[in-house]
Amino acid sequence: MVILGIDPGYAIVGYGFIAYEKNKYQVLDFGAITTPAGMEFPQRLKEIYEDLSFLCQKYKPEVMSIEKLFFNTNKKTAVDVAQARGVILLAAKMNRVDIREYTPLQVKQSVVGYGRAEKKQVQEMTKQLLGLSAVPKPDDTADALALALCHAHASGSAFQKIGI
Amino acid sequence: MVILGIDPGYAIVGYGFIAYEKNKYQVLDFGAITTPAGMEFPQRLKEIYEDLSFLCQKYKPEVMSIEKLFFNTNKKTAVDVAQARGVILLAAKMNRVDIREYTPLQVKQSVVGYGRAEKKQVQEMTKQLLGLSAVPKPDDTADALALALCHAHASGSAFQKIGI
Repeated sequence: MVILGIDPGYAIVGYGFIAYEKNKYQVLDFGAITTPAGMEFPQRLKEIYEDLSFLCQKYKPEVMSIEKLFFNTNKKTAVDVAQARGVILLAAKMNRVDIREYTPLQVKQSVVGYGRAEKKQVQEMTKQLLGLSAVPKPDDTADALALALCHAHASGSAFQKIGI
Repeated sequence: MVILGIDPGYAIVGYGFIAYEKNKYQVLDFGAITTPAGMEFPQRLKEIYEDLSFLCQKYKPEVMSIEKLFFNTNKKTAVDVAQARGVILLAAKMNRVDIREYTPLQVKQSVVGYGRAEKKQVQEMTKQLLGLSAVPKPDDTADALALALCHAHASGSAFQKIGI
């Protein structure tokens, strides 16, 4: 099963594709779709939509695991993140990718084992579980891979299978 | 010039197409794209995207005039409205429709002549300016037509031309 993890945003959309079969993970690709601050907002949405569609067609994920959105105090940014997230959901739907949402708490519990884990702990465990030589940069990419892992665990009881 | 007015939402997206030439308005179409509450959210986004794309291809508007989004206290709804609005912006962009945003204050000032106008006054003036026999229903549709009028005024100094 190919899982796409997404950390939503409009300046940076972190993504990570992992294949999860028979208790094993394989990282297929990870990175970030970035759009420049000076670009008009609808054009940024279009680039996110098109780049993500391209990646979905390339790796054909069955599921997209995306962070659930909560509003923070910076309302201007929150509107734009939500607008970009709508376009990300649409890109998945148009490419027949199922969608699952997880909260940051669920990701921490799933990847590290407890919900109060620090961001660095999540990143370190993501690196270890996926056999990467370093924590991926930017943080959005590491977060995206953690979301993909979270869904793998939720769907396959991976905790037991890999002996954690 | 064909102008598309949009009142954004996810359960109801109000739309109105008007042609504005030589001081005159002609209503081409108006209505609402609706999606049922029981439908999964990404599917609702897909339907909004596809229906709006179909309408843009039918009426070929040069500009979409859309209400600027402010967050209210109902945060759950606000996220979903913003997500749907992102998809609406994308649909316009993908169909090469320019995008203009107006605040409710600007719409009232433009359509009625002052920013503290009541909603009913805006609807009544919209009806009169467009030569409609009744205020369109639902409210989202009337609001969408008011947004189209607002952009017509902003682009063509229509206040002077039609003698208000």
